Amino acid sequence: MADWQPPASFARLDHDRAARRGYPEAVYCAGKSAEQVRAIAAELRRRHRAVTLFTRAGPEHARAVLAELPDARHEPEARLLAWPPAPPEPTGGRVLVLAAGTSDLPVAREAELTARYLGRESDLVVDVGVAGLHRVLGLLDVLRSAHVVVVAAGMDGALPSVVAGLVAVPVVAVPTSVGYGAAFGGLAPLLGMLTACTPGVAVVNIDNGYGAGHLAAQIAAAR
Amino acid sequence: MADWQPPASFARLDHDRAARRGYPEAVYCAGKSAEQVRAIAAELRRRHRAVTLFTRAGPEHARAVLAELPDARHEPEARLLAWPPAPPEPTGGRVLVLAAGTSDLPVAREAELTARYLGRESDLVVDVGVAGLHRVLGLLDVLRSAHVVVVAAGMDGALPSVVAGLVAVPVVAVPTSVGYGAAFGGLAPLLGMLTACTPGVAVVNIDNGYGAGHLAAQIAAAR
Amino acid sequence: MADWQPPASFARLDHDRAARRGYPEAVYCAGKSAEQVRAIAAELRRRHRAVTLFTRAGPEHARAVLAELPDARHEPEARLLAWPPAPPEPTGGRVLVLAAGTSDLPVAREAELTARYLGRESDLVVDVGVAGLHRVLGLLDVLRSAHVVVVAAGMDGALPSVVAGLVAVPVVAVPTSVGYGAAFGGLAPLLGMLTACTPGVAVVNIDNGYGAGHLAAQIAAAR
Amino acid sequence: MADWQPPASFARLDHDRAARRGYPEAVYCAGKSAEQVRAIAAELRRRHRAVTLFTRAGPEHARAVLAELPDARHEPEARLLAWPPAPPEPTGGRVLVLAAGTSDLPVAREAELTARYLGRESDLVVDVGVAGLHRVLGLLDVLRSAHVVVVAAGMDGALPSVVAGLVAVPVVAVPTSVGYGAAFGGLAPLLGMLTACTPGVAVVNIDNGYGAGHLAAQIAAAR
Amino acid sequence: MADWQPPASFARLDHDRAARRGYPEAVYCAGKSAEQVRAIAAELRRRHRAVTLFTRAGPEHARAVLAELPDARHEPEARLLAWPPAPPEPTGGRVLVLAAGTSDLPVAREAELTARYLGRESDLVVDVGVAGLHRVLGLLDVLRSAHVVVVAAGMDGALPSVVAGLVAVPVVAVPTSVGYGAAFGGLAPLLGMLTACTPGVAVVNIDNGYGAGHLAAQIAAAR
Amino acid sequence: MADWQPPASFARLDHDRAARRGYPEAVYCAGKSAEQVRAIAAELRRRHRAVTLFTRAGPEHARAVLAELPDARHEPEARLLAWPPAPPEPTGGRVLVLAAGTSDLPVAREAELTARYLGRESDLVVDVGVAGLHRVLGLLDVLRSAHVVVVAAGMDGALPSVVAGLVAVPVVAVPTSVGYGAAFGGLAPLLGMLTACTPGVAVVNIDNGYGAGHLAAQIAAAR
Amino acid sequence: MADWQPPASFARLDHDRAARRGYPEAVYCAGKSAEQVRAIAAELRRRHRAVTLFTRAGPEHARAVLAELPDARHEPEARLLAWPPAPPEPTGGRVLVLAAGTSDLPVAREAELTARYLGRESDLVVDVGVAGLHRVLGLLDVLRSAHVVVVAAGMDGALPSVVAGLVAVPVVAVPTSVGYGAAFGGLAPLLGMLTACTPGVAVVNIDNGYGAGHLAAQIAAAR
Amino acid sequence: MADWQPPASFARLDHDRAARRGYPEAVYCAGKSAEQVRAIAAELRRRHRAVTLFTRAGPEHARAVLAELPDARHEPEARLLAWPPAPPEPTGGRVLVLAAGTSDLPVAREAELTARYLGRESDLVVDVGVAGLHRVLGLLDVLRSAHVVVVAAGMDGALPSVVAGLVAVPVVAVPTSVGYGAAFGGLAPLLGMLTACTPGVAVVNIDNGYGAGHLAAQIAAAR
Repeated sequence: MADWQPPASFARLDHDRAARRGYPEAVYCAGKSAEQVRAIAAELRRRHRAVTLFTRAGPEHARAVLAELPDARHEPEARLLAWPPAPPEPTGGRVLVLAAGTSDLPVAREAELTARYLGRESDLVVDVGVAGLHRVLGLLDVLRSAHVVVVAAGMDGALPSVVAGLVAVPVVAVPTSVGYGAAFGGLAPLLGMLTACTPGVAVVNIDNGYGAGHLAAQIAAAR
Repeated sequence: MADWQPPASFARLDHDRAARRGYPEAVYCAGKSAEQVRAIAAELRRRHRAVTLFTRAGPEHARAVLAELPDARHEPEARLLAWPPAPPEPTGGRVLVLAAGTSDLPVAREAELTARYLGRESDLVVDVGVAGLHRVLGLLDVLRSAHVVVVAAGMDGALPSVVAGLVAVPVVAVPTSVGYGAAFGGLAPLLGMLTACTPGVAVVNIDNGYGAGHLAAQIAAAR
Repeated sequence: MADWQPPASFARLDHDRAARRGYPEAVYCAGKSAEQVRAIAAELRRRHRAVTLFTRAGPEHARAVLAELPDARHEPEARLLAWPPAPPEPTGGRVLVLAAGTSDLPVAREAELTARYLGRESDLVVDVGVAGLHRVLGLLDVLRSAHVVVVAAGMDGALPSVVAGLVAVPVVAVPTSVGYGAAFGGLAPLLGMLTACTPGVAVVNIDNGYGAGHLAAQIAAAR
Repeated sequence: MADWQPPASFARLDHDRAARRGYPEAVYCAGKSAEQVRAIAAELRRRHRAVTLFTRAGPEHARAVLAELPDARHEPEARLLAWPPAPPEPTGGRVLVLAAGTSDLPVAREAELTARYLGRESDLVVDVGVAGLHRVLGLLDVLRSAHVVVVAAGMDGALPSVVAGLVAVPVVAVPTSVGYGAAFGGLAPLLGMLTACTPGVAVVNIDNGYGAGHLAAQIAAAR
Repeated sequence: MADWQPPASFARLDHDRAARRGYPEAVYCAGKSAEQVRAIAAELRRRHRAVTLFTRAGPEHARAVLAELPDARHEPEARLLAWPPAPPEPTGGRVLVLAAGTSDLPVAREAELTARYLGRESDLVVDVGVAGLHRVLGLLDVLRSAHVVVVAAGMDGALPSVVAGLVAVPVVAVPTSVGYGAAFGGLAPLLGMLTACTPGVAVVNIDNGYGAGHLAAQIAAAR
Repeated sequence: MADWQPPASFARLDHDRAARRGYPEAVYCAGKSAEQVRAIAAELRRRHRAVTLFTRAGPEHARAVLAELPDARHEPEARLLAWPPAPPEPTGGRVLVLAAGTSDLPVAREAELTARYLGRESDLVVDVGVAGLHRVLGLLDVLRSAHVVVVAAGMDGALPSVVAGLVAVPVVAVPTSVGYGAAFGGLAPLLGMLTACTPGVAVVNIDNGYGAGHLAAQIAAAR
Repeated sequence: MADWQPPASFARLDHDRAARRGYPEAVYCAGKSAEQVRAIAAELRRRHRAVTLFTRAGPEHARAVLAELPDARHEPEARLLAWPPAPPEPTGGRVLVLAAGTSDLPVAREAELTARYLGRESDLVVDVGVAGLHRVLGLLDVLRSAHVVVVAAGMDGALPSVVAGLVAVPVVAVPTSVGYGAAFGGLAPLLGMLTACTPGVAVVNIDNGYGAGHLAAQIAAAR
Repeated sequence: MADWQPPASFARLDHDRAARRGYPEAVYCAGKSAEQVRAIAAELRRRHRAVTLFTRAGPEHARAVLAELPDARHEPEARLLAWPPAPPEPTGGRVLVLAAGTSDLPVAREAELTARYLGRESDLVVDVGVAGLHRVLGLLDVLRSAHVVVVAAGMDGALPSVVAGLVAVPVVAVPTSVGYGAAFGGLAPLLGMLTACTPGVAVVNIDNGYGAGHLAAQIAAAR
């Protein structure tokens, strides 16, 4: 049987890819044990490298990271930790994140923070559902000043289509698993966003706030 | 083996139910042969009864009906025939039908005509997608004068939610199979309408313009 | 990063929409923390506004609401709280709610109470499955005295179709997640209700008792 | 490469199984070429064996069978051919087949004829939907005289549940692909029948009239 | 608001239907509170009626039943209680229940006991998978002595098809949610059983041991 | 009934939105009759407006457009027509379109042409599947010179993930319906792209070459 | 716009990969035009390379190939062409292909021929369904002499599980789209094969006879 | 009622099949109680037979096995126990197992250990995703020295396709339920692997590390 030796092999941090692509590495915690996450954090500390994000970090993951990197910034609502804690100086265009409802906040916040740690200015506006169009219309100036808009929405996922009809820049749509019944865990907003009748909508996976923020940061990167 | 004798048994027109419920009977043609539809039309002619609608009538079905009931009104776009041709004098409230796009017209038209033949005043407005909010907002007065609004929309099916946020009356949402890919034959708008974040949306089956018009006529009935 | 300040922004109660549409606002608790719900309740108390419903409220949500609004009415079975506790004087037509089985009660009760707090007279009858037709037929007089019938049913969801064949008024069908196996969390009754062979069936989302009661109240509104 | 020799190997008629189980063999034509079906018919003629059914036979399949077995009985509506043409003398109990609508006739007729050729007395009643309960109730005596009831229904598939609540004998439910939209090619009635709230419902595959008739014949077999 | 008075209305035991159909009533516990189940048990005790089954009874349901009906028979593995405890004297034909694997036992046992309390002789054989054909073939005599065979199987659900090829009597196939991944909670065996290439397979809902036993008892009833 | 007057109402070209958002309008032909498309083309000719694309244009649609706008550019493989025929002078960054296989060409070409008519320089490279990594790796320089990469791929849809691992810019992934069986009409690549393990992948609807090209043009727009 | 030059770029035959992996290249025709296929065939002729297979070739594809490579072997039933026509001398172990029914023949034959052209001895046996176990059991010696068994089966797809229980070698299971209703285009046998209760079953895509034959040839390769 | 006597009948260990097929028996623990598993372990101890694996063993199952077979080897991460603890001396070819990410480790490890206990040399390499191609390419020599490669991957499941393009031997692809949202519990990688554009990919059930290892061991068996 192979000489299987953790942690040397179980999660090789891909600093090269990070370097190659110019963006920080992210450690997806959800499928890992607290021990595995702690070992990764320890390795990070030793190597003293650039910004790293810990995503989908539950309380135990967070404790494991903070045990090794006590100064890491922890945002429990977004299940995110960042180290070093200070985000880089913003460059490129501005990222605006909308959350359709309060329940979409964790995902929207994860997107906002990710974009921030990838070097973009980012803002978050909450509770902008299509049921109350005046709220969307009241944001027109804010919307049009952004270089990319991220929209997190569950249930019918109609907001990205409405927003994309109002702006010239790309809209990153992230469906959330908020809702019940025929929302089928985010399937309804996912399909709605994919079939949005307005062009210019870029869809990412359900609840993937990290991916939405990352994509938005790439779109708004300085060229 | 049973002594199987068409047409005496193959499609017993349910005039009693029609009478009992106060609405005309409809003959769903899609699954029937032209011969079967013609036999039903012939029986209708003999009995000289009240309004009957033939729905989902293809060209051959239409020819079969017109062979027996030459004065029937035929609306090919809505795949509908009505006999006798004159709709009843309108009573009750007004039904407004919106089609999100041109491709939704056949379904929207079927709804409009059904409501009309069930005794309601009805109007149709086309091409009112959420991608151009100004179109929806430009209809506010018309929308608010209706007693019920029917919305036919494919793709993301976001329009009913937006409309329901603008009016106090019920919105009957009919998803259409317009679209491709992740629209999955109308599944995307169906799920979107069922999970609409605005209350007051009544959903019917995909492409079911007849059902939408019937339900709207019941909602707007005089009491 | 945006200056993110809860609770000022995280859940803007849409009193304007409520006013505009003429119906009370509802706070969907399921995706919110107890703290968020409590902050909303506190804001309500300060503003002294009209009827508000708290839906999908678990025990912690209920405690949070009652801490701020001690006189709110709490109906645990329906996971509902209403404040102020007294429903408005009924106007418009009568809403009749049927629950196919005992397990459908929470959803049916949520519908009944919602219709009541939106200003309609409403009644609830339980255990009216299609397996025992005599029960349905024994309700004919009650059914025919209603202005709209809400039917909550899980498993095969056959009851709305049967009821719609017996009455002239609209039937609001709410599928429930009651059942197992091929019920697929409410998918089976949802599809059954959407394809009901009787016209006049308005479908809402699985387990959406609030939406069913709201739609029924709109249909039965005085004109 | 194997010495591949049609027709000796491409469809070995399983007379042994037929003999072993006591029921005629059936040749499922849908996936076979007319040439393959003709070769099977020729082999049958040579061997002079007991009753064989050709199911799902399109016009070309039928021509192929009749070319070899000119006296075979052909029922185009049920896409069935039987040879020899005369069904056996009935034994066992009576099979009653109900078709919810005219569009369900082909499937219902296939079930009726299959049961007949497997040796049962069988009858067919058409257009017995749940939308008109009086039709179902008007059949009570007929229903209660059968030893098994086959119900073919599309759309919501609610009829078997209603029928099973009225009789003591098993109900064989065969969903049909009649319907559109959320009927999803028979998925809706299939799920509805599987989750029927009345026990005593035996479900077979969508459009499987042959299987329904076969199962009914087995249930009603003399013991 | 309706004067809602439990327990008079929340679960009307349908003794008439039971009487009418000749089979005991069953109380499906899964969706009911322990209090509701206890109230039903108390009502049963007062009325002193014939056999009643409590199905899908968890530990709390069982305690509730036994508090009112201390002599009820409780079979925890099958989640079943029966009262009065003694099954009726068997009549009709013999029911044989097969469980493909040990994990299918709870469902198989529920079927066996249901058939027994509905008045049939019934036996259970466990661990008869298609992976070891010799086990199936070793049961040939037992199989052929039954009047109906119930087969409970998860995963690929191939066993009913194999068994139906060996016997002349109907096979009641009950898919179980045993398995993982592509078994999709019983969908795989459900589809496999519905498309079994052998006729004579009657399918019931996933994990529906009660329904399988009930149907088998009806099929094997004395005539 | 409303005075329904085509073509004034059936397809209101949304020049305002086009102007507002700064991109040409597109006419989706798939759901429209040749007559409807011709009427739109005639209106365009009269108004002499800026660039318009006709997408999903079958042969009859193309004839209808060319009858009114004989100088329109027609690209049958991409089912696209553009009028006026000359694309605008390129601005902004470069768009690179990859087609995983020859069968993905129509979609890839639609993306390339759309980006070109929206004002970007665009190139197309075909047959770059993951099965032959050397092909992808041989394109590294080309890939890294683009400001956005569009990847059209069917079957497993693995290419976008591989490409996104090699570049720093956003990847627009468009799943195609190429493939059979478990590709389920594009569902497999759609899910694969949504769950790509590399961040920076923006997904659009199945076969939506137009949407992919539009989104890419927005991402690569000059700022 | 890129200087797009077919055919130089539209389908680069991957001879390198073929060489690298040691197996012939295959041209999947289904998504290509006859012209594209002919251009590939012409290129092949010019380069005079080793064995190439044209899979999923319809009549027009076949004509195109034969126009350039008149001596190619064409097997219409398997929709396959091979050039040069003579298969290589067999090496490695023997491949046995089973077709559950006649309708599975095209897929099974494609597997048999693919394995043959990849250099294995291969045989085909047809009509070996689980409904007649004696057929399977009668093949025991043949089964046990093979180095790998390919099983093509539609409907319930139960055969691979049964076969894998009888042999020690791997079983390659290829689900076919044979069947209707709940077979859902091959989904039922696909799920059945993936959840087969016997280990040793390797599943490939629905109707993928080429893939099954290729995998079998690799498994049985000489080492 | 049958005289039901556990454990004699509830889980007949199929030593005959094991012997017949030449591979150890496996006890799937997931659906069994700790008591049932302990009884099986006790029986094993008494009979002193060859290697047996306990798969999907939770902590309670492990305790039950170790109570009877204290020297059994327990690998908690792979949820596996083996008894006797020493694997057999390796024969046949080498099995290489790749885990795309750390979260795929439990499944990959189950595959590695299974292959080892079935008599093959086996190795495991972790964290080889397609997002970082250099990792895959860095393994070329290792890959090409294996007789079969097992790839465990969740999310998009793209790795097997890439690997199969680099080696001549079969690739056993095991999708994992790692991921969220559109990964749908492993459906996304399952479909991706089934539609891999490279031939030579053998797919097994989601999370079925045991099945993957078993199949690999059969493929790499000495001949």
